[in-house]
Amino acid sequence: MERTKKILDGNVRVVSTLIRNLEDRIPEAKTAIGSIYPHTGKAHIIGFTGSPGAGKSTLIDALIDEYRKRGKTVGALLVDPSSPFTGGAILGDRVRMQRHATDSGVFVRSMASRGSLGGLSKSVNNAIHILDAMGKDIIIVETVGAGQQGIDIINQAHTVIVVQIPGLGDAIQTLKAGILEIADIFIINKADRDGVGKLYQELMSMLNMYNTDKYPGGWRPPIVKAGNTNNQDSFRKSVEELTDTIEAHYQNLLSKDLLGERLRRNVMIELEETLDAAILEPIVTKLMKSGEIDRIIDKILRRESDPDTIAEEIAGKYLKEHH
Amino acid sequence: MERTKKILDGNVRVVSTLIRNLEDRIPEAKTAIGSIYPHTGKAHIIGFTGSPGAGKSTLIDALIDEYRKRGKTVGALLVDPSSPFTGGAILGDRVRMQRHATDSGVFVRSMASRGSLGGLSKSVNNAIHILDAMGKDIIIVETVGAGQQGIDIINQAHTVIVVQIPGLGDAIQTLKAGILEIADIFIINKADRDGVGKLYQELMSMLNMYNTDKYPGGWRPPIVKAGNTNNQDSFRKSVEELTDTIEAHYQNLLSKDLLGERLRRNVMIELEETLDAAILEPIVTKLMKSGEIDRIIDKILRRESDPDTIAEEIAGKYLKEHH
Repeated sequence: MERTKKILDGNVRVVSTLIRNLEDRIPEAKTAIGSIYPHTGKAHIIGFTGSPGAGKSTLIDALIDEYRKRGKTVGALLVDPSSPFTGGAILGDRVRMQRHATDSGVFVRSMASRGSLGGLSKSVNNAIHILDAMGKDIIIVETVGAGQQGIDIINQAHTVIVVQIPGLGDAIQTLKAGILEIADIFIINKADRDGVGKLYQELMSMLNMYNTDKYPGGWRPPIVKAGNTNNQDSFRKSVEELTDTIEAHYQNLLSKDLLGERLRRNVMIELEETLDAAILEPIVTKLMKSGEIDRIIDKILRRESDPDTIAEEIAGKYLKEHH
Repeated sequence: MERTKKILDGNVRVVSTLIRNLEDRIPEAKTAIGSIYPHTGKAHIIGFTGSPGAGKSTLIDALIDEYRKRGKTVGALLVDPSSPFTGGAILGDRVRMQRHATDSGVFVRSMASRGSLGGLSKSVNNAIHILDAMGKDIIIVETVGAGQQGIDIINQAHTVIVVQIPGLGDAIQTLKAGILEIADIFIINKADRDGVGKLYQELMSMLNMYNTDKYPGGWRPPIVKAGNTNNQDSFRKSVEELTDTIEAHYQNLLSKDLLGERLRRNVMIELEETLDAAILEPIVTKLMKSGEIDRIIDKILRRESDPDTIAEEIAGKYLKEHH
């Protein structure tokens, strides 16, 4: 197919249109994923997560430079939760990334949630497949660290990097986000700030507490410190160290035969999301188009029925075999 | 039913068991929601969100005291994303809340994600219904601010409070979490820290920029400052101010007839989650039990098929009418 060939050739215009059409759920676009899928599975996918304000964008910007120096092509997906402002002029850090726009070895794209049915993870997965088929060696996916959907998105990565900054509260607050179990590498960013020693100690004690049997392949997540961007030399060195650490993690996955296990888990997560789009969404769409949903909501609000009972009724109506 | 009566009477042991059984997806427990549902819809539900470390727990702790002084009964659900440590001894702020345990007018419960299929929102909704049927006047739901699931959970509230602290980065970072559109009240916590003036100005400009037509009922989210807990007098005053502001917001919803619209949206969100549990989960469970899921994942990993194609095949197998 013409479009598939253009994607494999790295045609930026075709790729951008396809990602947008998939976000907009244009049914025709879905067929494209089927035809590029056989050409995927080659990229190293790196996930970045951390609180808003942790400086993820600045680090990714520098990481792209470093990978380009090392002769790798890079795709980056910057994922935002839903916001009325997303895509607008306010997203300054997105604008900064645009300096890579003239480098054909780099493709940067912002992505935002558009619906309420968990469509963002699905769109991000599709975009990963497209960048992968395009031949990008490295695919970076960035998102904020909390919430199941954020974790689902970041879980698609082979190497997960958690960015922390000093002064955000106790280690207990870090644990809340459930990130210890998904982190392959920690970065302490803005490491010239007060409290860096405290944060380092807290992360170390957390890692010490964690049962070492649980570290797959014996990979204990290292902690990389990154200083102020004003000190260019020191910042560049920490980005080099980060890149070396990322490569070491990937080599460990490959050499210990652990990548397969991670890929199985990732496919399972993606499949669940895809089933949602294939099964649940059409049912909800039908209920909305027929206006039945309004009658149902009225019934629940009048307390004449409850969501569970209604859901069982709908299941009985749409499923072939329903207990 | 005996159990229903005990819940309506506020039996803490029965309520706790039921919430746990619903989290554990014990099928029998689901029938309880059906029988208490007609007794729900009376509580004022207040949502608290904000980054980890923003001091939400301390504020909620003080808010519970203030509502008790005003003669209201309170239920609080403290919602954590999944973590291997959740429920353990590390959650110090949860322990602090336990001082309310001797007050029969207060019920505090921590909740954490246990599965990967978005079950947390569903469990939180069930717990809200139970506390509502129990007769709690005020139900507080706390969660971290980011991710679609976090937003879905907090959206069940009638009044949404977003907690901010100085020094967490630019306003642009706040926007990322998509919280402007869900906030009814902002709190600047730890308002004795450096940068409080800057944060206040940033929030004000954000609110000024936002199209005022979008404020339902003309309610422009006010900004409440809360100082250091070491200055007891000033902290107590800010909690009183917060409580007055929450009450004013609720009265505005009621007087402008806006509550109904919010309730419709909330029921719709809950219904989507319930459909997920009633339709999608049984299909995934069947695929897993039969071992078919492993064959499917292998096929995808060998690139012999892709998730979309597989999902359409499964939809054809389970849905009565599939295009």
